[in-house]
Order: sequence, then structure tokens, then C-alpha cells
Amino acid sequence: MIKAAIVGASGYTGAELVRLLDKHPKVDVVALTSESYAGQKLSELYPALGEAGNKRLKKLDELVFDPAAVDVVFLGVPHGESMNMTPEIVKTGVKVIDLSGDFRFKDTLVYEKWYERQHTAKNLAAQATYGLPELFRQSIKGADFVANPGCYVTATVLALYPLIKAGWVEPTTLVADAKSGISGAGRKATAATMFNRVSENIMPYKVGGAHQHIPEMETALSQATGEQVVLSFSPQLIPAKRGILTTTYAQLKQDQRADDLQALFQETYRNEPFVRVQAEYEAWPDLSMVVGSNNCVIKTMIEERTQKVITIAAIDNLIKGASGQAIQNMNLLVGEEEVLGLPLKGMIP
Amino acid sequence: MIKAAIVGASGYTGAELVRLLDKHPKVDVVALTSESYAGQKLSELYPALGEAGNKRLKKLDELVFDPAAVDVVFLGVPHGESMNMTPEIVKTGVKVIDLSGDFRFKDTLVYEKWYERQHTAKNLAAQATYGLPELFRQSIKGADFVANPGCYVTATVLALYPLIKAGWVEPTTLVADAKSGISGAGRKATAATMFNRVSENIMPYKVGGAHQHIPEMETALSQATGEQVVLSFSPQLIPAKRGILTTTYAQLKQDQRADDLQALFQETYRNEPFVRVQAEYEAWPDLSMVVGSNNCVIKTMIEERTQKVITIAAIDNLIKGASGQAIQNMNLLVGEEEVLGLPLKGMIP
Amino acid sequence: MIKAAIVGASGYTGAELVRLLDKHPKVDVVALTSESYAGQKLSELYPALGEAGNKRLKKLDELVFDPAAVDVVFLGVPHGESMNMTPEIVKTGVKVIDLSGDFRFKDTLVYEKWYERQHTAKNLAAQATYGLPELFRQSIKGADFVANPGCYVTATVLALYPLIKAGWVEPTTLVADAKSGISGAGRKATAATMFNRVSENIMPYKVGGAHQHIPEMETALSQATGEQVVLSFSPQLIPAKRGILTTTYAQLKQDQRADDLQALFQETYRNEPFVRVQAEYEAWPDLSMVVGSNNCVIKTMIEERTQKVITIAAIDNLIKGASGQAIQNMNLLVGEEEVLGLPLKGMIP
Amino acid sequence: MIKAAIVGASGYTGAELVRLLDKHPKVDVVALTSESYAGQKLSELYPALGEAGNKRLKKLDELVFDPAAVDVVFLGVPHGESMNMTPEIVKTGVKVIDLSGDFRFKDTLVYEKWYERQHTAKNLAAQATYGLPELFRQSIKGADFVANPGCYVTATVLALYPLIKAGWVEPTTLVADAKSGISGAGRKATAATMFNRVSENIMPYKVGGAHQHIPEMETALSQATGEQVVLSFSPQLIPAKRGILTTTYAQLKQDQRADDLQALFQETYRNEPFVRVQAEYEAWPDLSMVVGSNNCVIKTMIEERTQKVITIAAIDNLIKGASGQAIQNMNLLVGEEEVLGLPLKGMIP
Repeated sequence: MIKAAIVGASGYTGAELVRLLDKHPKVDVVALTSESYAGQKLSELYPALGEAGNKRLKKLDELVFDPAAVDVVFLGVPHGESMNMTPEIVKTGVKVIDLSGDFRFKDTLVYEKWYERQHTAKNLAAQATYGLPELFRQSIKGADFVANPGCYVTATVLALYPLIKAGWVEPTTLVADAKSGISGAGRKATAATMFNRVSENIMPYKVGGAHQHIPEMETALSQATGEQVVLSFSPQLIPAKRGILTTTYAQLKQDQRADDLQALFQETYRNEPFVRVQAEYEAWPDLSMVVGSNNCVIKTMIEERTQKVITIAAIDNLIKGASGQAIQNMNLLVGEEEVLGLPLKGMIP
Repeated sequence: MIKAAIVGASGYTGAELVRLLDKHPKVDVVALTSESYAGQKLSELYPALGEAGNKRLKKLDELVFDPAAVDVVFLGVPHGESMNMTPEIVKTGVKVIDLSGDFRFKDTLVYEKWYERQHTAKNLAAQATYGLPELFRQSIKGADFVANPGCYVTATVLALYPLIKAGWVEPTTLVADAKSGISGAGRKATAATMFNRVSENIMPYKVGGAHQHIPEMETALSQATGEQVVLSFSPQLIPAKRGILTTTYAQLKQDQRADDLQALFQETYRNEPFVRVQAEYEAWPDLSMVVGSNNCVIKTMIEERTQKVITIAAIDNLIKGASGQAIQNMNLLVGEEEVLGLPLKGMIP
Repeated sequence: MIKAAIVGASGYTGAELVRLLDKHPKVDVVALTSESYAGQKLSELYPALGEAGNKRLKKLDELVFDPAAVDVVFLGVPHGESMNMTPEIVKTGVKVIDLSGDFRFKDTLVYEKWYERQHTAKNLAAQATYGLPELFRQSIKGADFVANPGCYVTATVLALYPLIKAGWVEPTTLVADAKSGISGAGRKATAATMFNRVSENIMPYKVGGAHQHIPEMETALSQATGEQVVLSFSPQLIPAKRGILTTTYAQLKQDQRADDLQALFQETYRNEPFVRVQAEYEAWPDLSMVVGSNNCVIKTMIEERTQKVITIAAIDNLIKGASGQAIQNMNLLVGEEEVLGLPLKGMIP
Repeated sequence: MIKAAIVGASGYTGAELVRLLDKHPKVDVVALTSESYAGQKLSELYPALGEAGNKRLKKLDELVFDPAAVDVVFLGVPHGESMNMTPEIVKTGVKVIDLSGDFRFKDTLVYEKWYERQHTAKNLAAQATYGLPELFRQSIKGADFVANPGCYVTATVLALYPLIKAGWVEPTTLVADAKSGISGAGRKATAATMFNRVSENIMPYKVGGAHQHIPEMETALSQATGEQVVLSFSPQLIPAKRGILTTTYAQLKQDQRADDLQALFQETYRNEPFVRVQAEYEAWPDLSMVVGSNNCVIKTMIEERTQKVITIAAIDNLIKGASGQAIQNMNLLVGEEEVLGLPLKGMIP
């Protein structure tokens, strides 16, 4: 059995790890930490977890990181906190999967600019492996320390990657218009996430070049394709608890056939267990197709009049956009089957 | 492996059976039927089902009911249709679990009055076993044909049963005020279930003695307690896809202590895998505690000023209120562990 | 023109007063206060108010209460704050309408018990007029200082009053099961009012004898009918921004005819501009019938089997349940037509 | 008083006209028609309308179109029906405001291509005036017959017009990503508009060059600016009853300063009573800022990295996007003040 610890288990991504790992046939969760709720059981915060949440939260400093006792640590802590604790943990030889943004950039100057804080573990940043399996599976397999991608990044990169890789579209005039459920904003009560504010509304935020996931998208796409990618990205909050839908617009370099586009996407993701490309006659992705699962559903088309390719991708932001992908990465790290323990279907209605 | 067929798989309860049975380690779903969608795959109607819905729907008359090929049939058809097909199926020796209301009453006069239609299989009605495991487990274990309870019934009966059994409350002045998500109204598009009608609303319907689940509640409670039970029941639709919350009011016959009330409920449901009684210091049940699971969460209190016991129960109407309970009954019928394959936790948020 | 000031204008009831008074043909809003947001314009907090919110918020101590400059002051401050400022204002001769709970009880012991704080203006409490026009119109007309009723109280009292007044029902075994939108919890961001908590949920709170509106309901009904009224009241939060729906259950003393019940309600509210009693063939009240208006829609029936009268009432909690009713009271205080400036219809969908 | 008739009053736009005109100080609604509900009162369909809906619906052929009895007719009928009845009405000399798409194109070939039906009143199409006051006010003032714009068109055109007019952006590579509430899909119950489908979801439809509002946007923008405009437009349904938010992306031809962009928009709409341009420090538009009002709220910015201008506009699709704009047009037609009777603020929360 894989012995897993979750640091920062009281947030949404931490609790989601607990929920998902409870169904993983080869994982034992050996420890949960939370600085704010230490001493309580996780199920006191999340009654829906039932027995799976029946473990007491500890302070981080109660944990001993020893490869004999812990195989892998998931870090569900906020940006800025991970870089303070991760170097110590990595040093012990325990494998680490960090769900924060702290180690997603080898170039820490990029991090410092977009996250507006100093990076305090620059050397370690260079050693982290970026954990988007569909693009970087081979490097993840041999890794010890994985930086798990951002939620918007996962959906948007999977939507655009085949087009850029094939060289079909202008890589510097891309547009991604994203819509996210409220859980992306975390568990804290704020004026922006109150029911009275969110219900029957849609709220743009960090419009146009302000969201910290932008450089991550550009870096991942550039690295995987060898192209210089520039992306206009604007997110909007919608009245949904979970889910991201991203609508992307890319200018064709030359005319292409609809069939070839379909073939390009089908071919690219043929062997991907969690990516489903809709056929032309099938529906456009929506959140109900993915919420509760680790899947990404994609549909693409050529708009003849404008010579644009429009591609829409949907994921569950807490699963494929965070905790599910982290477990997918864990499976790769430890050499298990990639889909093990991960949900392949959702609940309707 | 248990070979299961689902008749009427295109409705919500049918699709939910498919979703849940897909995770059941000892069940093979061997056939799905739908008169309206025969020829299509279930996943065309419910993309979220993924591979689990990758089976083609057949017409009912394509099925052969032979105990060598099918161990158990779930009937997810509307009230009034079940009684036409069930006698034939039961005759073959295949076990049947009927999710409709057609066989929930041994006294078919009650059925005919409340469902406002003729009963065409009166003899069979007398043979059906009522499938509420918490009250009637022993009779279910030896049965071949189970009538699965109504959704409102499950929540309301579990809330009131300990009080009536103990003889603490007047059994003829009970009140149950229930609130249900929209999936209870089925998959058909109607004016009453449109988003524009439901969102930001709460809609009473069949108020006061009009809902067909009333005689079922009274019969189940009377039969299990030996008391003559009379209940005032009013349901209301709320802006939720899933979930029932029922708030019950019962008049104490004499003063009781809060501790004793807590003990009464804890004791009654001590060994029930799917019933959780909240302690006094814990939160009142809400839908987020149960949606996605087969659980029923209950909390109770004595209101000193009025000498009433107020008890609130919450369930997922499509799981513990329908398809999950049907699987719980199946596990009992075939002698498997009662919890096998059933979800004990939900998703948050 | 009536010169009105609103103290505590930044909360929901204050902002709603501004919105409604903007359409009142005989009112000038001369001053708005907010201790937290003084210096800002109200429209910065509520962009939807447009020009109507284009007035700068002041600190309370910037206001001079002089009957020459201000005719009426609305107090939109929290319970506990009103009693500290109201004695001073009332002394000036300016009319006061207090939307808090501080002056709703002549017997301040009741207040102290249910609000769990000391009352610091007991003498003034004895002078306040309780502002539920449908029951106490005459006393409001000559008053200078009105305590505006609670939101749950308004709906529940209007539902039960005709039955108790007529002596038809047992006044000590009443049950009211209420459902409220989230705005009733105020503008502050809390864990309980976050979208992720509220959406697709229903959340009981202060169940059974815990809500501070209970003694207010009992006092108002007792005073208006001469009966000793005892009520079991339990509220639940639903996924709606506005609106209260209250479902009441009352035991008949003797058999009554449905026609007579209908006549009793129609007769009681025949001349009420804001109360609409649905006919037997009309729909049960729902929030969409009342949100945006000052109306209360009521329907009632006799449940023959249980000899209970079930009555359901719906209001907009911020209008008839707070700011609209406050304006209705203001119209009475100053001798204007009662409906002046008040919305009689809502928006669909 | 202006005597107005509404043909097709039972749909959302018709009912909204009734609701809004009830508050218009110079309009008498003299007749309402509905082929499906003739004989009923409108308030039976829309209880929230109260007294304003207390008029009986007639069949269209019961109406006499005589300028002595009717000054203006609003047509709230579906696309395809208007062209059959409008020629007769226009002939009588009664002014007509058509809310359908039938007369929005002088070039009926465009209509026939995008609406996929024959146009049966081509001559009349040439005489219609396109009713977007902010762009075409002068021609509306002298008109007798106005084609009221589409909902998506209104929001998107107001967002893009200043940029194209000023020649700042490439007019042939525009992108508009729109999100709409469900009322845009009309009052009919469909699988796509059920609560179970819509809640917690976002659903793309008619993606990329498929929506019939596209040629209307391009025509309006081209005509108002003299540029050849080509637009990529994709709509998505969100869990909201009302409201449209459109996010537009336009490529700058050359570098521009943020201040100048702000000045361009402020200048363009300086005298517009219903268009509000947010300052740089103010929030991005959201639906709560506009629902219930005839306003359009706009914010714009330059994304330096990509040299794109991102502009977001929000409207209430049933008011500024339909019935409110129709009344605005009516005010212009009859020479009244443009804002008369139109709501300038909404309700919060």
C-alpha cells in the first residue's frame, strides 16, 4: 500500500484528496494536517465525508517525514506557503506533489512577477516536474517532486495543445474565455463568494492579462510544442460550485478541413484515459459532463467565416483541475496504473 | 456475479442504478431497456455516465427473463406500468425489485384510491415485500419480490419511527413538512420544472392530504409499530437537483428528557449502516450531508415550550430514496453484505 | 414633500429603503448614514442603485435631528444598536420607524430573554407602536414611533390571524415551518451564506423554540385576538436571495366547511391592499408571486383526514418583511395613502 | 395618453412589456392578444403581475387596427409570424414596434440564409427602421415602423461600436463570447431549459458562426461605422433567469493609451441615458448591476501583452435586450422623453 499524507487537508483540494483517496485501492492515508483545525476531525468540517473524514487533523510539525512511514505527501496549502515547507520535505526522500503554484515555473522570475512575492526556494524550483500527464507523462514517471497544474491551465492547455503542436494556428493571438465555479475561490467566506452575490450572476475578474495562470499556460504550451505562445485569458465566475469551461479562439494559418480537425484532436488524445473528444454530431461540453469525474471533455470546430478554430473544454476544477490530477500524478510517480482510484463518471442530474 | 437487468433505464432512477451498479463489485448489468430510446446508448442521454453508459438500450420484449441469464430485475418504470409487466416476470423465478408505487400496498383499495387508477395485479400485491430495510430487514432477506419505498416515505418514516415505536408521541397528530429537489419530478420537461420557474423559488404542491406517499408512510409506520398512525404531509419543491429534507412535528404524550430522546434515536439506529443520528451539539441535517450517498442523516430535539419533538431527516432522493435503497434491497435478497457497492459519502462542495 | 433620513443605509434593508423611496412621489431622502462606509456613495456598494444611490453616506453624528429638517427617520441598524440611539431621536420630535427588534416588545423582559441582551431603553419600549398595519392600523395612524415587525413574523402572523381571531383553531398547538432566502441573514459574508454552502441545499437553523421572532409572533397574535397563542416555529434557509414562505398547521376545534374557510380569509383581508388570498382553484403561493412587491399571497385549506387547517403565506422578506412595510407604516404615520410609492407587482421570470 | 396594444402578450417579452408599461405615465395598454391563452387574464399566467395583468387576452383577429383607437402596436410574436401580420398593420397607419427578427435586415437574403426560412414581406423589410437608439436615434425619431434589435446584438454592438467607429481595432477579427440567462430561450418548457439541466452548469450552443444574431451585429456595426465588420460569436447559457454578459476581444491596429480608451468610451456614451461606462477603478460589469433596469453597463481595457482591447457589456436581456428597448423606441417614435417610464435601477440582492 502507498502511504500518503495530506498537508493542508482542511481546504477544498485537501478534502477532495481525502474523498478520492478513500476509494483508491492501493493508498492508505496515514496523516492529515491543518494548522487552523488541528485536533478536530475532518468530518466535522465536511460531514459529507462520513467515515472517510474520521481522522484527526494534526499540526504540520507533528508529522515526521520519513520514507519508511510516508511514501508521498500532497501539499494542499496556499501559494507562498508551499515554498517554505517543501525543501525540507523533499530532502527526506519522500515524494511530493504540490498543488500550489509555487513550483510551476523553473524561471522563478516569472513566478515573482505574476504572484507578486519573493520566491524563497529557487533551487528547488529548477528540480520540479510539471505534472500535466497528457503533455509531460514521461518526465513525470521518473520524478520525485511534481508541481500540479492550475485548474484553468489544465482545461485551456488541453483545448489548445493539438492546434499549436500541429502548427495550424497563430500561436500569439490566442484567446481563452474561461468560466469557473465558485470552489475555485477556495473555502474562505468573502463578499465575492456569497450566495446573494453569485446566484443569478456571472462575474468577470482579473480580466485581460491579470490572472497568474496565464504564464503557466504559455509556458506549458510553449514547452510542449516548441512554439512561442501568447494568450489572452479572461476568467468569469458563474453560479456553480464546481467546474471550469474554457472557450478558446485560434486563428488558422491556412484553410483546413473539418474532418482533419476532428482527426487531429482524436489522434492526439486517442490513448488518454481522461480526455474525451466529442464527435461533430455530439453536444458541446458542459459542466454536467465532467463534474465528479477526472475527465476533460473537448469539442472543436472551424468557423469558416472567420477562419478561427473554436475549441471548448470542460473539467471539474477540484478533480482534473486539482486533486484528481494530483492522484493521477501520484499513480505515475509510484508506477501504478494511471487511472487507479480515479472517477471516470459523474452524477446526473 | 449477480446478473442484473434494468427495465426503464432511461429515467433518472434507471440511470442512477446504472451509475451505482457500475461500482458494485458483484454485479454485472446484463441488459437495459427503454421503450422510448431503444437502439441508443444510455450515455447518449447521460454523457456523464461515460463507459458505464456504453450499453445499448433494448425494447422490453427483446428481453428473456430466465433465472439462468438474469438474477434480478430492477423496474424503473412509472406507476401504472409496473403492474402490467411484473406478474409475468415474477412468474419466471427471476427476483424483482420494483421502484414504482404499484406494489407498495397489500390493500389495493388504498392504492386505487390514492393513485386514482385500477390495480390490475391484486394477487401479486399481496405477495410483495416492502423494502425499507431499517424497519423490515428480516422479511426482505427471504423475499423474491420487493416493492421499493417512495422517496418522501423513506425520509419521513425514518424520522418518526423511533418516537412512535417507543410510544412517546401522539401517533395521530403528526406533521411532516417536506422539501424536495427537482429530480423527484422525473426527467420530463414541464412548466413546473423549468429553471425560470424553480430558481430562487420554493413551490408547494399537493399540500395537505393529496400526495400518494401519505398512505405509504402511515402503513409502514403502523405496521412497524402496531400503532394507528395519521400524518399530515405537505411537500414543497426547492431549487436543488437532488435531496429531500423532511421536518416532522410530533406531540409528546408526557414530558421526556433530551438525553433520553437522543438515546432513543441512537439506540434505534445503532447498527444501521446508512442512518446517522447527529448528536445534540452537531449541525442539523442538510442536503450537502447526504447528496451522493445512500445515507440518511437525522437530528431530533424536544421543544420544551410546546412539548413537541421536532425531527429532521435528509436523504438523496435518487439514492436512499430510490436506486440506492433498491440496491440495498438487492444485497439483502441475494445474501450479500448490505452495504456492498453503495456510497457512504458525498462530494463537497 | 416628506423629508426622510435613513440611519444604517449600507445594509440590505437600508439600501432597499433607498431603492423604494426613490420611486415614492412624496418623499425626499435627505440623509443616509453608515458608520462603516461613511464618505462613500451608496452606489459604490450597490451599483444597481444607479442615480438613486448617488448620495454620500455620513456618520450618524453628522446628522442633526430637527423636525424642521427631517420628518421621519428609518433605522436600519442591527438589534442592540437601535436602543442606544433611538431615545435621543424620539426626543427631538422626529418620527421614527425602527426596523430592528429592539422595540417590538412592551415587556422588555421578553426581549431580554430572547435577544439575550440587556434592554437599555425600557421606558421607550412601552411607547412604541407595533407596525403591522393589517392588525394594528388604527394605532399606527396616530403614532410617532413605530417598531417595524420581523420578516418571519409578518408572513406567519398574516397566515394564522384569521383562524385564531375566528376561534376556529387550537391556539396553543400551532406549527409554522418557514423557509427563507439568504438576504434575511444580512449582508455580511459568513460560512453559512457562501454560495458553495447554499446552492442546491436547504439548511435548518434555530430549530424549535430558538428563533427570536417566536415571542413576537405570539405577542402580536395574542394581542390582536385576545387568545393565548403558543407556536412551534422552525426556519430553514433555501437557495434564494429573497423571499419567505411559511407553512402553518393549525388544529380545528370542530369541523368546518372549505367554503367557509375561504370566506373567512377573503373577508378578513378584503380591504387590504397588500394581502391577496388565493381562491381554491388558484395556485399555492410561491416566491415568484411576491418577490419585488410589498404583497403577501396566502392560500389556505382544510385537510379533512387530520382536521388541520394548512395555510401558506409568501412575502418578499426585504419588502413586506422589512423596508416596504416600513414605508407602508410611514405612509400611515404622515397621513398619506397607504400604498403610495409601494410596488404591487414583481418581475417574471 | 398613448394607446398601446401588445400582440403576443403571453410570452416573456409580451409580459415584460405589460409590466413596464404599467409604470409608464403616458401609456394606456388597450389590448393584449394571445392565440394560445385567449380568454384568460394575463395574471393567470403571471401571478406576479397583479392588477397590471388583470386584462383578458384576445385573439388577434378580435383587434381592429385603427389609428383612432391604437397609437402603437408591439409585436411579441416569434420569428416567422411577424412577417405574416405586420404588412396589414403597418398599412393602417398604426405605428409598429416588432420585437421579432423578421424586419431587422433590409437585405432579406441575409434573413433567409440565417433564419432558414422564406421572407414573405420583402418590400416592407426595406422600410423598417432598426431600433438601436444609441446608434440610430435620428432615424428612429421620424419612423413609423421599428425593428427592435436582438438581445445579444444590443450588448455586443454597444461594447464594440466605439472601437470600430474610432478605427482603433481590426474590424474583421473580432471575437464576442456571450453568456445569457435562460429567459432568452423563451417560456416554453424544453429539455435544455429544465432546472436539472441548467443548475450548476454552463451550456454552449450555436457555437461559432451559427447564431442568427451574428449578421445583425455585423450589419449594425458596419452601417454605423462604415467599416466592413466580421465577428466570431459564441453564446453560452448560464444558471440565471435574466441577463446577458458579452466579453469582446478586438485587436488594436496600433498602440493606444489606457486613458484615451477610457475617454473614447466615456465620450461616445456621454449623453446616453441608459449606457454607463465604468471607470478604470470600478468593477467589471456583472448581471446584478443591470437586471431589472434598461441599463447597459460597460467596461473596457487594453491588454498590453496582446495588444487587444477587452470590453465587457451587461444588460437585462428582457429589458434593454427586448421590451425596455422597445419602449425606448416607442418614446422616440411618439416624441416623448426617451427615458419615460423606463427603470434606471435594479434590485439588490
